[in-house]
Order: sequence, then C-alpha cells, then structure tokens
Amino acid sequence: MSAIRRLGEQARAASFELLALDTTQKNKVLASMADALEASRTDLREANQKDLEAGRSAKIGSALLDRLELTDSRTDAMIQGVRDIIDLPDPVGGEIKSTIRPNGLEIKKVRVPIGVIGFIYESRPNVTVDSSALCFKSSNAIILRGGKEAIESNKIISKALVEGGIAAGMPEHAVQLVQTTDREAVKELVQLEGLVDVVIPRGGEGLINAVTEMARVPVLKHYKGVCHVYVDDSADMEKAASIVKNAKCQRPGVCNAMETLLVHKDVAEGFVANLPELLSGVEIRGDQTVQSIIPGAKAASEEDWHAEYLDLILAVKVVDSVDSAIAHINEYGSRHTDAIVTGSEEATRKFQNQVDASTVCVNASTRFADGSVFGMGAEIGISTDKLHARGPMGLEDLTTYKYLVAGDGQIRE
Amino acid sequence: MSAIRRLGEQARAASFELLALDTTQKNKVLASMADALEASRTDLREANQKDLEAGRSAKIGSALLDRLELTDSRTDAMIQGVRDIIDLPDPVGGEIKSTIRPNGLEIKKVRVPIGVIGFIYESRPNVTVDSSALCFKSSNAIILRGGKEAIESNKIISKALVEGGIAAGMPEHAVQLVQTTDREAVKELVQLEGLVDVVIPRGGEGLINAVTEMARVPVLKHYKGVCHVYVDDSADMEKAASIVKNAKCQRPGVCNAMETLLVHKDVAEGFVANLPELLSGVEIRGDQTVQSIIPGAKAASEEDWHAEYLDLILAVKVVDSVDSAIAHINEYGSRHTDAIVTGSEEATRKFQNQVDASTVCVNASTRFADGSVFGMGAEIGISTDKLHARGPMGLEDLTTYKYLVAGDGQIRE
Repeated sequence: MSAIRRLGEQARAASFELLALDTTQKNKVLASMADALEASRTDLREANQKDLEAGRSAKIGSALLDRLELTDSRTDAMIQGVRDIIDLPDPVGGEIKSTIRPNGLEIKKVRVPIGVIGFIYESRPNVTVDSSALCFKSSNAIILRGGKEAIESNKIISKALVEGGIAAGMPEHAVQLVQTTDREAVKELVQLEGLVDVVIPRGGEGLINAVTEMARVPVLKHYKGVCHVYVDDSADMEKAASIVKNAKCQRPGVCNAMETLLVHKDVAEGFVANLPELLSGVEIRGDQTVQSIIPGAKAASEEDWHAEYLDLILAVKVVDSVDSAIAHINEYGSRHTDAIVTGSEEATRKFQNQVDASTVCVNASTRFADGSVFGMGAEIGISTDKLHARGPMGLEDLTTYKYLVAGDGQIRE
Repeated sequence: MSAIRRLGEQARAASFELLALDTTQKNKVLASMADALEASRTDLREANQKDLEAGRSAKIGSALLDRLELTDSRTDAMIQGVRDIIDLPDPVGGEIKSTIRPNGLEIKKVRVPIGVIGFIYESRPNVTVDSSALCFKSSNAIILRGGKEAIESNKIISKALVEGGIAAGMPEHAVQLVQTTDREAVKELVQLEGLVDVVIPRGGEGLINAVTEMARVPVLKHYKGVCHVYVDDSADMEKAASIVKNAKCQRPGVCNAMETLLVHKDVAEGFVANLPELLSGVEIRGDQTVQSIIPGAKAASEEDWHAEYLDLILAVKVVDSVDSAIAHINEYGSRHTDAIVTGSEEATRKFQNQVDASTVCVNASTRFADGSVFGMGAEIGISTDKLHARGPMGLEDLTTYKYLVAGDGQIRE
C-alpha cells in the first residue's frame, strides 16, 4: 500500500472513531492542541527560519516570503485562533428539520460530519492550524497537503497538533500531514475514492486546475476573487468614493479586494477624473473612455478584465447601464463578491437577483465577504463553487446531514 | 463550436433569463408543458414503439424493456407529475438566514438556482419529464442526456416540453436534449467548465464510473443502493419479520429495497430458520452459520456482500453484535439506506450515529427512503454522495444560495 493510501485508510478509520466524541471532549482536545503549539514555539521558530532561508535561496519573491513568515504576533494569533474555536457552537447533531408523517414515522434531518477531508493549500503555515482545528471541531478527519515552501513549519505544527490532540483523547489519525511534497502525492490523494469524501484546494490557478483535472473525489474549490464594484448613476458619490477606496486599498492582497471598477457613463466624467487623487498610488488601467478622462492612464487589455491583481492595480470600465455592468461581471467575474453603489431600488433588485456571485453587496465594501464578518466565528476559506458551500465556509459548512427515520414497525404499502 | 458546447452556451444564457421569471409565470409554463405532452400522446406512442422494437432487436432484456415502455397509465402518471409540481412551493428566493451585524449591515442568505444542470440517465423516458419539470420549477436550465434505448421517446417528450414551455414564456434553451447518443457527447458535457454547474449521473456502475473519471465539473452521483436490514437480539420478532419481508419483496427492483440481511447471533437460529417460509420465492445466499441453519442454502461470496441484486435474491449474514453489523454496513454498503430492528435504546443510538448512510431507519422498512415519503412532493433522484445533497433530492436540493449584504455606505476598518 502506498503512503498516501495508508493515510486515507487511517483517516477513514479515524472518521468513525470521531463520531464517539462529544463537544466537551472535542473542546479538551482543542485546548490541548493550543497548549502544545505554545510549547513548540522554539522549534517552530527554527523550522520557519529554515523555510524562509530555503525560500530566499529559491528566490520565491517577497510576497510569498511574507506569507510564509511566522512572526511572534502571527504565532500568537494562530494559537488564539484554536482557543476561539473552542467557544464556537458544535455543528454536529444539530437538527435541520423534523416531521412526523401521517403513518406515524418520525423523520429528522440532522447534521453529521462529512467524514474525511483532503485539504490542499499553499504557503501560509497558519492555515495548517485553522483548517485542522475547524475540521476537528466538526468531527472530520483531515489530511493536510501544504505547500512545499512551508514544509518544515508544517511538520512542527502538525506534530504539535497531533501530540497535543492525542494526549487529550483525539483519535490517532484524525489529523495527518502528507510528509512529502511531490506532485504525485496530490494526484493520489484526489483519487482516493471511498476514503476521502471531499478535497478542498485553496490557491491559485495552477493548483486549482491540476486538482480539477485529476480528481475523482468531489472537489470544493477555493479559487480567486475577481471582485467588482459598480458605481450606478444614482449613487451617492461620497459613499461611492469611500467604498471604492476601501475595496481597493484597505488590504489589496486578499481575495475580497476589488480588482475591477465599473462606472455608469452618466457619472463617469466626474467620478473617473477623481480616481487618481482618490486612489493615489494605484495604477489605473482603463477602457478608451477612461483613458480619455484620465490622460496617461494605461489601456486595459482583455486579460485585465480577468485579472486578480492582489496588488495596487485597478481595471476601470465605463458602462451604459446596470444591465451592462451585470453582463460584464457574469462574463469576467469569478463568482466571489461583487458590489453596487446605488440609490435605485430597481438597480438594487436587478443586481442582487442577476449577479452570479456568492456575495452581492449593496452600498457596502466587497471587503465584508468574510466568515467572521458574517458571524461564523472562523472560516476555512471562501468557496467559489456553487454546490454544498458557497462563499465563506464556517463550521456548519464542514458538515453534511443524514435522515433519521424512526418507527414502530411501519412497512410500505 | 461543437454541438455540445453550443448547448452549454445556450443553457448558460437561459439560466440568466430564468432569473426574471416569478412563480406564477413558471407555473403557467409547467401547465403548458403538461398540455403539450397530452397533445403528443399519439406521436409519443409511436416513438415509444420504435424504441421498444429497437430494444427487442438488440435483445436488451425484459427488465430494460419494461422500464422503457410507456403504457397509457404510465403516460398519465408522467403528465400528472408535471401538474403536481405546479402545486409545490417555489424554493427560489427563500430566506435561509438573516442577521443585522453590529455595524448596521444586513446579511441575508437566500436560495438561488444552481444555474445549469447536466442530467445523465438511463432508460426510463418519464425521467426526462420529471427532471425537466423539477429543474424548471427551481429556475435551472437543464441539458438532458438520456439512454440511447429511449432516444425516440425522449425526442418527442423534449419537443413537447420545449414547445409547450416556450408558448407560455419559457426561455428558449431552458430545456435541451442532447440529440446524439454517442459517448463522446457525455465526455464533452461533463467537461464544460464555466457552462455546466453540476452533472447528475443517475444509473449503474458503468455510467457512474465513466462520468466520475471524465468530469471536470462537479458531480452529484445517484448510484446504487446496497441497503441492509439488521435484526438485533432485542428486536420484536414479528416486526422484524414484517419489515424484512417488506424491504425485500414489496418492490425488489428499486434502489431502497434490502439486498443484505444481518441477524444477531442470539436470535439467528429462530429467525433465519423461518426465512425460506417468510421470503418464499427469494433465493437466499448465506454465510456458514446461515447455511447450517437452512440446509441447501447457497454460499454467499465476497461479491454478494457488495451486490445490488434488484431482484428476488438476498444475502444473509449472522453477526456478533450491533457493532459488527455497523462495521459490515460501513464496509460493504453504498451509503444509501440501512435499517435496524431493535428494542434497545443503546443499539438505536449506535446505529443512528455510526452507520454512514443518507437514511438510517429504526424499526421501519428501508422502502421509506423516498422524496414523496419525506414530504418533498417529488424527487429528482436519490443522492449517494455526501456533499450538497444527500438522500432523496427535492426542489430545495436543486438550489444553492447567495449572501446579500446591504448597507448604507459601510466600509471595513
């Protein structure tokens, strides 16, 4: 048996053992995981240094190095994240619906864990902790496959989670890290039918395409955010300026930041002319109208409308109507988050109804598309798929359900 | 552009047009579809005769021929099925959750259509009608790929649905049938990323494996039912006998019929000895203990524990405890429906908690796992997957959701 298949078999067995743990027992495990991470700080600092040095030698670039680095305050936040999950409600066993049928049968629809989750992600080591803690709290076994850049950090983190967890009663294989970083391992993992219930790839185009192409088990993609703000002709222009600035500049490197701005033609002259001042430091790439309003602005190419810059760059287009804005978003967007700034009820209704995205904001920044903002407490990521879970995924989204039918000897006529 | 990609593009466009229809308009379309089917009865009878003759020439077997045949009463039921869907509540727009956050943002989670559904099925022509009507009522566009045996019937049915639908305001490409029966078409269909949101294959092992292997879009499998009944030592033996007989014999050819019977060792002697009389006409294949109790019973092989007979055959095994029964089910079952007959609360809890199936019955026949029994009104099939929808899938399961965030200019700090 290959190493990956063994992880799968062990995870499946653990998924059944997890069904026996109640909320109190699970919270004890989480507390013990947090303590073990505390106790591993020195080892973790050393391992992270190794990853950073390897990254520097491999010239992976400053953005990636930044994501890789575990500063003391990031480690604090990571450990606090586990303690926060203790306080979240346990989704398992929750009743979704209950009916008694005319023949006396009681039918309950109750939340149960999904089972075994394969989680494939890139460079940030804190994701190893967040995803393990959320999967464990929802009684799922997890197989972690982090990026090769973070392998030394991930090894120490998963060792702490496993040893801390087991000391407090966690089934031995509830949390497992793939110890190798070869691509063949990913292929095997996403084809473990019957052992892995879902794989969640969280990352860029290369990772998502590779997983989609190879997978035989269900996939829940956490892919890019090409988020739009549309400024309608009926918008309050001060609010529009404030939302546009926030959506682009407050934290440009995240998936719910704005990448493309659409402006109604009747307000374009004034609003677009003000952009260089409003978004000082942001590179504007515009269509012809934008270029005529902002002398010297670069031309936006077809690729710009598809681009997730994650940087201080913005594509800007002038549109004829809310309908044109919606058509643009449905053609180029990534179904993540899109916003309208408007004073019109009709435009609001159309935009909410017709934009195909997991989150649609009206007179609010795209930056609000976030599990903690939505009251989920913590999120494992933001699904850009439509099935099972869409948008920010919290604990409830890590469960499925079963129907419990209870009778007194009923048979079907 | 290939014919299949064109269907995909057209379906995507229709999926946006569908968002503009309200419940009243959709119900008018459904009524018009039913009328058009009524008006097509003669054509349909002729087309069905062609399919039956082709099937007889190809020697497809009596079970398949039976499923293929549209008798007058089956046609009646098929048309009535469409009218029944008019009366079901429209799932689209339904509010799942709503909160107002401390900063004044209102966040609503509302049901929306999935978009474009690719539906791949086998021989029964009435499935063409059921799936189209359910997808349309939930505002989804559907691309139908029926079995080649039923192609003539399906052409007439889809023509009636489309013409009747369009006459009452249905978007032109909301319902489309793949007109060819080559396998290449299936491959193209399940790889239409960005155009098809989910494919639902409903059928046997060959179909399910082919789709799983080729698909790039999400798949929701409607696969086999290897359903178990476990008779605990604490069971009321009369109820056990009645449930076992019902689960096996009331309609053996359907997916929620029992295929394997598990009996606790302490009651095996009496219960198993009575099986030949209780299940007269059923071939028993047993383990060694069963063979020792029923002289002349055939031996069950490893394949028998995996088998979905859909016939008057039953695999029977004697087990040590409820734990052994659960272990057997989780190893050999298909996650569809399993039942326990018991008088013990502890055995009930264990069985409900640990059996990994979409429906778990206590003191009730497996035959109850059915959308109409569960109060869904109609079902598009029974999902054997765990994500998105599990067990009987009704109208609500043909929707996803989006988050609507409404503010008054809020930005993120």
